[in-house]
Amino acid sequence: MKIAILGFGTVGRNVFRLLENVKDAEICRVLEQPGRITEDFMTSDPEEIFNDPDIGIVVDALPGIHPSYEYIKKALNAGKHVVSSNKAAICFGFSELAKLAESKGAALLYEASCGGGIPIIEEILRVGSNDSISRVSGILNGTCNYMLWKMEKYGMSYEEALKEAQALGYAEADPTADVSGFDVRNKILILSSLAYDSALSCDVPMMGIEQVTKERMEVFRKEGKCIKLMGISVREGASYAISVCPVVLPDTSLEANVASNFNIVSFTGDHVGELKLYGQGAGGDPTADAVIRDIKKILLGDAFLYERKFENILTEDASLLRGTCHVGGRILKDHVLSEALMEAKAQGCFFAFEP
Amino acid sequence: MKIAILGFGTVGRNVFRLLENVKDAEICRVLEQPGRITEDFMTSDPEEIFNDPDIGIVVDALPGIHPSYEYIKKALNAGKHVVSSNKAAICFGFSELAKLAESKGAALLYEASCGGGIPIIEEILRVGSNDSISRVSGILNGTCNYMLWKMEKYGMSYEEALKEAQALGYAEADPTADVSGFDVRNKILILSSLAYDSALSCDVPMMGIEQVTKERMEVFRKEGKCIKLMGISVREGASYAISVCPVVLPDTSLEANVASNFNIVSFTGDHVGELKLYGQGAGGDPTADAVIRDIKKILLGDAFLYERKFENILTEDASLLRGTCHVGGRILKDHVLSEALMEAKAQGCFFAFEP
Repeated sequence: MKIAILGFGTVGRNVFRLLENVKDAEICRVLEQPGRITEDFMTSDPEEIFNDPDIGIVVDALPGIHPSYEYIKKALNAGKHVVSSNKAAICFGFSELAKLAESKGAALLYEASCGGGIPIIEEILRVGSNDSISRVSGILNGTCNYMLWKMEKYGMSYEEALKEAQALGYAEADPTADVSGFDVRNKILILSSLAYDSALSCDVPMMGIEQVTKERMEVFRKEGKCIKLMGISVREGASYAISVCPVVLPDTSLEANVASNFNIVSFTGDHVGELKLYGQGAGGDPTADAVIRDIKKILLGDAFLYERKFENILTEDASLLRGTCHVGGRILKDHVLSEALMEAKAQGCFFAFEP
Repeated sequence: MKIAILGFGTVGRNVFRLLENVKDAEICRVLEQPGRITEDFMTSDPEEIFNDPDIGIVVDALPGIHPSYEYIKKALNAGKHVVSSNKAAICFGFSELAKLAESKGAALLYEASCGGGIPIIEEILRVGSNDSISRVSGILNGTCNYMLWKMEKYGMSYEEALKEAQALGYAEADPTADVSGFDVRNKILILSSLAYDSALSCDVPMMGIEQVTKERMEVFRKEGKCIKLMGISVREGASYAISVCPVVLPDTSLEANVASNFNIVSFTGDHVGELKLYGQGAGGDPTADAVIRDIKKILLGDAFLYERKFENILTEDASLLRGTCHVGGRILKDHVLSEALMEAKAQGCFFAFEP
């Protein structure tokens, strides 16, 4: 099958390289910026790709919502299968894009959008097809985990940790999407929507790590606890709650021991109990590997087996997420997470949730 | 499709219950011991199942090698798909059974045989179809993990921990298969053979937990380390090494924080890096859930997509597993694991490997 790649950055380049060894896959086009065209197979005109009837799969390896969102729609409308690593675009058009794909008989797969090389979407779909999932949570941003890890274990300040993450290429020059929680929000929304088979609202109570200081971490460390940025969602019947915020965890939890820029995702099924998947949540090779696995699903014909229809109607009930809330120096026991988070936001102070 | 279940213990009963909600699946026969037949659909004659042309899938939920091994062969020879939770029987006839299944065009699936509800076989097959796996390791026996955890965290003696595990139903009256490492051996052999696509020899250097004392654990605890029983294998080119033994790990590793009777399995792919999967490695519900997922694969038609042929010929090179070896009170640095393990066995003393 002929394949086109949109974007030739870290992910696009690695997909290109790894696809060489995949049977029945042939890369025929790569969308690249006008000034960077160096090979015959590159083009800066996306319409050349969408209008080419020979192209069966379009790989979206671009960053940000636009123009990915529009490109995915064009590709699906042209009846092409789409494999995307772009969490922002997928999250932005979630149920609309899924419905469009279904109506066109095309596959829309995005394993690489959440947790890089970790096969988390695969397993949420497969386990969830058979079991009722009541909880999803995880350390979903490698940049923030790297920074918090350096602050906790090496006593770095927030600024030092950010600088090092930027020097290593883990954080962008403008780190907002990572440190403010937007990236985790996109991922926990995608994973939770798949887990509960319901397109959840993008309005997520959210707090990033900007208010976390090494002094604050030290206080928790003395109690045998640490802080991790996590996405969390729970479902009970037709209600759900979701949040992205710093979470206080005992040092003996698996999450507390996720070092460097690694990710971990948990979900709980009625029968299977709690499952956790750990791995490299970013990076060219692991992310490209997840893209290749999606492409192989299309080539092998098992891309549609565990599809979601997002037909469950769930309503938000913030009170489902309650526990000890740290607002500035205050400790609010058995408090609703989102209420305490809003209070901390209004005061511009530190917030963390202790389940 | 009509389904028969061999055995009506914890796993069989739960498969029976969970299958009620699976579309296109109908249980028509259950093999039970003569004195325990209480329902019309039960039979104590296995031939009734193998000779019934209407039965499409046989679920093997029996314990131990025999008669499971013979039953699996009979079912495959009759052209029936087989789903087994029985690691001992699968490991005993590994490549023979796989070849028989292939020659009959029947599926042979056994996700439930390793790690209970953890989708580890699924992911080793899927990720491995696309990537070269160089390492598999894990805490694969919930009974031993429960005992070591109780000894470490609650200061119990080996005998006290075993008694409690037996009272909770985690350990058998005769706990040999668990505490001596046989159960882990079966699982690491199955997982490694799938990961390396090669039927590995069952001759595995093995040491269980019988020589682990709380005093020994206390020495390591003071150094910020703990002991876990693990299966480990590595591959380099056409060579491999494998072992089952107590492993010394830093308290900050994920493995060290796997509590109670939970399991964790790691594998490393060239592209995807290190992945870890954690969950309930035993118990009726999680194990039955894995059986149901395998049955669904057959019903949906994706049971054959990532099959292994075991065509790689690997030779054992014990020197691939080397590190610090604890033999009794002695510390042997940069030593070959299997040599030190044999020495400890000959002396009847404590052994642990520190990678």
